[in-house]
Amino acid sequence: MKEYRVTFEPSGRSVFVLPGTKILEAAGRAGIALDTPCGGQGTCGKCRARVSRPSGAPAAPAPSRALGAQDIAAGWRLGCATRIDSDMFVEIPEESRFEHRPQILTGDSGHATAPDPVVSKRHFSLPEPSLDDQRSDLARLRSALGEDVSVPGEILGELPGFLRRNNWRGTAVLTDHTLMGLEPGDTTRSLHAVAFDLGTTTVVGTLLDLLSGREIAVASGINGQTAFGDDVISRIMRIRERGAALAELQQAAAMTLNRLIDELVHESGRSRSDIYEITVAGNSTMQQILCGLDPSSLGEVPFVQVFDSPLDLPAASIGLGVHPGARVFVFPQIGGFVGGDTVAGMLASALDRWDAPVLFIDIGTNGEIVLACDGKLLAASTAAGPAFEGARIRQGMRATAGAIEKVVFADDVAVNVIGNVKPVGLCGTALIDAAAELLRAGILDATGRILPPDEAPSAVPPALRRRLVTQDGETHFMLVPGSESAGGEPIMLWQRDVRELQLASGAIRAGTNILLKRAGIDAGRLGAVLLAGAFGNFIRRNNAQRIGMLPEVQCQSVRFIGNAASLGAKLALVSQAKRAYALDLARRAEHVDLSRDTDFQAEFASAMMFPDAPVPCDVAASQ
Amino acid sequence: MKEYRVTFEPSGRSVFVLPGTKILEAAGRAGIALDTPCGGQGTCGKCRARVSRPSGAPAAPAPSRALGAQDIAAGWRLGCATRIDSDMFVEIPEESRFEHRPQILTGDSGHATAPDPVVSKRHFSLPEPSLDDQRSDLARLRSALGEDVSVPGEILGELPGFLRRNNWRGTAVLTDHTLMGLEPGDTTRSLHAVAFDLGTTTVVGTLLDLLSGREIAVASGINGQTAFGDDVISRIMRIRERGAALAELQQAAAMTLNRLIDELVHESGRSRSDIYEITVAGNSTMQQILCGLDPSSLGEVPFVQVFDSPLDLPAASIGLGVHPGARVFVFPQIGGFVGGDTVAGMLASALDRWDAPVLFIDIGTNGEIVLACDGKLLAASTAAGPAFEGARIRQGMRATAGAIEKVVFADDVAVNVIGNVKPVGLCGTALIDAAAELLRAGILDATGRILPPDEAPSAVPPALRRRLVTQDGETHFMLVPGSESAGGEPIMLWQRDVRELQLASGAIRAGTNILLKRAGIDAGRLGAVLLAGAFGNFIRRNNAQRIGMLPEVQCQSVRFIGNAASLGAKLALVSQAKRAYALDLARRAEHVDLSRDTDFQAEFASAMMFPDAPVPCDVAASQ
Repeated sequence: MKEYRVTFEPSGRSVFVLPGTKILEAAGRAGIALDTPCGGQGTCGKCRARVSRPSGAPAAPAPSRALGAQDIAAGWRLGCATRIDSDMFVEIPEESRFEHRPQILTGDSGHATAPDPVVSKRHFSLPEPSLDDQRSDLARLRSALGEDVSVPGEILGELPGFLRRNNWRGTAVLTDHTLMGLEPGDTTRSLHAVAFDLGTTTVVGTLLDLLSGREIAVASGINGQTAFGDDVISRIMRIRERGAALAELQQAAAMTLNRLIDELVHESGRSRSDIYEITVAGNSTMQQILCGLDPSSLGEVPFVQVFDSPLDLPAASIGLGVHPGARVFVFPQIGGFVGGDTVAGMLASALDRWDAPVLFIDIGTNGEIVLACDGKLLAASTAAGPAFEGARIRQGMRATAGAIEKVVFADDVAVNVIGNVKPVGLCGTALIDAAAELLRAGILDATGRILPPDEAPSAVPPALRRRLVTQDGETHFMLVPGSESAGGEPIMLWQRDVRELQLASGAIRAGTNILLKRAGIDAGRLGAVLLAGAFGNFIRRNNAQRIGMLPEVQCQSVRFIGNAASLGAKLALVSQAKRAYALDLARRAEHVDLSRDTDFQAEFASAMMFPDAPVPCDVAASQ
Repeated sequence: MKEYRVTFEPSGRSVFVLPGTKILEAAGRAGIALDTPCGGQGTCGKCRARVSRPSGAPAAPAPSRALGAQDIAAGWRLGCATRIDSDMFVEIPEESRFEHRPQILTGDSGHATAPDPVVSKRHFSLPEPSLDDQRSDLARLRSALGEDVSVPGEILGELPGFLRRNNWRGTAVLTDHTLMGLEPGDTTRSLHAVAFDLGTTTVVGTLLDLLSGREIAVASGINGQTAFGDDVISRIMRIRERGAALAELQQAAAMTLNRLIDELVHESGRSRSDIYEITVAGNSTMQQILCGLDPSSLGEVPFVQVFDSPLDLPAASIGLGVHPGARVFVFPQIGGFVGGDTVAGMLASALDRWDAPVLFIDIGTNGEIVLACDGKLLAASTAAGPAFEGARIRQGMRATAGAIEKVVFADDVAVNVIGNVKPVGLCGTALIDAAAELLRAGILDATGRILPPDEAPSAVPPALRRRLVTQDGETHFMLVPGSESAGGEPIMLWQRDVRELQLASGAIRAGTNILLKRAGIDAGRLGAVLLAGAFGNFIRRNNAQRIGMLPEVQCQSVRFIGNAASLGAKLALVSQAKRAYALDLARRAEHVDLSRDTDFQAEFASAMMFPDAPVPCDVAASQ
């Protein structure tokens, strides 16, 4: 099937998608989360985007009820209602992005977060010493900056020379009330910092202008620690086996961050010393290793963290090459494997400020679930992630070029491949799609068994039935024949893959159910299910509900909020109020250790079964 | 003249003194300041010492009115009333030392300063983590130490391993509310620190037990910076000429401190890592160089310091090898050359807590003067010191072995030489003694001219008259003939030496007069003149008044308070309240720049003239 190229402005990022894919989904593919308060029903008009075609032909049709005639004439369309039917340019204005919907972030003000960073600059011009004014250099500076400003020894050492070389004028860089640097001239118009989402697999760094709160550049890369193991447990075990591995893993993480910093400053024409602060949001293991803290006690019952309250460290002390006085803010942690990335996600989603209970699910290499209900915050962690990242799936792979990322059944199977190349394997979203479609077709039963051709319902189209391959008593489903794959081998959904999916999906659903039970509410009371994380972003909601991973709520209640950990890290960088809010959220959250919950095993066993009946969102058109 | 050996207990220090010297003076010679609230009038009984003779013969006579018969029978005598008439052992109880007179230090309580150091230790025993208690290591530790304890990254890195190796027990070392170290077992009975008096010439370090507040060991040595110049101005000029000299001078100071620390820990059987804090009191130049702060702006008008408020630096940052978490407290400074040693001396003397105005004079390589009057504190600095340390005196030398330290005229000249050896030269006290005795004999006139033999009064004994030597129109006075000196050359008081003395003494007196004038009081209102510093300790009060250096107050008002800078450094180490008091004193003190005072030149010119009339203390018996 032909794919169309969609190029997003102003980022310039391109993706290839199947005809009929919605702009909302294509944008997600490109890492852009559109704001959909109405749940993508085409009613709120918040996800507007301006569409044009390379050919110059008029924009895609679909007169959107939520837009005026003038906007429509100017090319404006709704991302949730407009399908791709040619190569396209799509301009996403800042206000259409989830990250820039302040009313979602604050739940109240309706205004964007005013920048209020911890780091600040002050230009000063001091009177020269004279016979009538023999105050010390320090007293003179403090009279301009405030008597409560503390000055570390290194800066004090520079002070006499600096003041005299620069005619008693310059710019002071302050972090809170501590002087962190002196700069000649007036540099108050330049104040930058980097927010990191430090994932087990992927690290995302964003360079921010702290004065405007705007993003200047984004860079991402694979965490260098992956060479030591794919998941947190294998890295913890490395360190438990050999103490020296802690330093190696720490350096691998720091090198990854340094490489991204280089990219960011290169891209933006800045230098490393222009970075005055760093925030880091990661899971417990990632945060601890980056800070040089032994995570060994996370490797055994009762899963103890080294710290819970946030850390404030010199960037140099963990090997980050930025401004010599820069500090690193490391997010507070909740307990066990529920770490700073979850707190950052909670901050970004402001999940406790909704009118109704809210469920927050962040699926990365691990899956974290938080339920906000009646002022309580319950947080749990599951090891659901790896399957969705392709691990333990026979032909699984990460969502990179060559990965089948979407599977749609019609008379036959249609797949979408990332990067417009021949398929190499399948990633997590395709795994969910395939299972959901097989359930709808009646080829997969509630226990997770792929039926052999002779047991499949008679209504199954022949083209699909021909894809069923039985070997050694088990049946597998061919997604792509060898003739169309990159390697010449067919790409299959193996019976064992379905079992892995049941484990991963069941873990998330069981965790959700336990939290709901703890809070004493039904899923029906949930005002929203917020899906965060790179993976959560690309899930087809109806398919995720069809396999039972998400609770049975109205489809519009399931909202994609993008990379919430990264957004939280950015918010904490830009705003002291947000940082304080994150601390408050972390303090209030209660860690629910699922492994200790007496109901968990029963819930888990039950959640591994696929639901029999279609769920609210299970309509023919996906998304 | 024969000298007697006096050995002080418990220190074991010995000095040689002339027959008839008071124990008070001999003790001063040995670096022990006796407490004399009554001014050495033999009435208060505070300076008691137990005297015995090597021969076993009964103690020296002098039935002291202030002592009971039983005490006298047990060998107790008053230091101010008992003269040395043989070799002696003198035991000085702690309560007779100026440093241990708490009522003088606090002015109110009458009780010794209760130790209340910034550094403290806490033994902890934590519950082990369990399924019911999964708190982080940090939260667990904080529940024992306090929620407000902050933990630096390095210590946090050690925490997981430390707790598990030591069964969740150990000792936390805290500086204020920051954890600075973890130690296995219960080490709360051991808590040490070092106080430094960082002089331009001499550095004194005292090892203190912070739990009891007691001194464990004392060590002193020459400041390694003397290789770069004898006085602060020459060292500042070195740095102004060549920036790299700052680092060299800093290292020289740090090496001196490290050498003394080695001596202290060696002597007391401790190790460097047992030192948890350091206080440093020095003049502006010494403190700044030790902290790596360029003192160049002290080398030119308007004499600006780098800092005034106290510094709190990591000991490691200035190259001091003690406990890795140890901090250095550097005393606040007042202005110009009035630095931390003056503040420490003010702290030790509590000069603002007396009922009457108090004048504090600390003569080291520089001379600092502080007047406390009606709640005001006026502080000035003069360059008086070098002459008293032997600099610019033709046969001058420091008060070390071979120095004539005392000169007494009877029919002829009697001198006392330090170390019971042949004389090499004369030190500052002998310079003052000689000038005072020459004035009394009428051989020296008020303008400072040594009269030739034919102009000297007829009453001058022939033995003295024979010592007058006229050369090239100037007359000099021979203190020791060549036949009795170490080098075979006569030791002379040269006419030029008298001029140098006039400059030094005049500077101190002029400074004193300016401060009194600023405060609007006469010297007669002074309740006390406190003499501090190694030199001040050894001065004969009557002689210092005779030459006009000290104002004309009653002799008992002139009090020796020993090394006040060192005592202040110790107090700030032992007590947070004292440290806060030092800050308060420094903040309240007003720096009087004598060089800018319009009256100073006139006062100086007038103060250089020797007084005509005898002063209150000018009695035949010295001291």
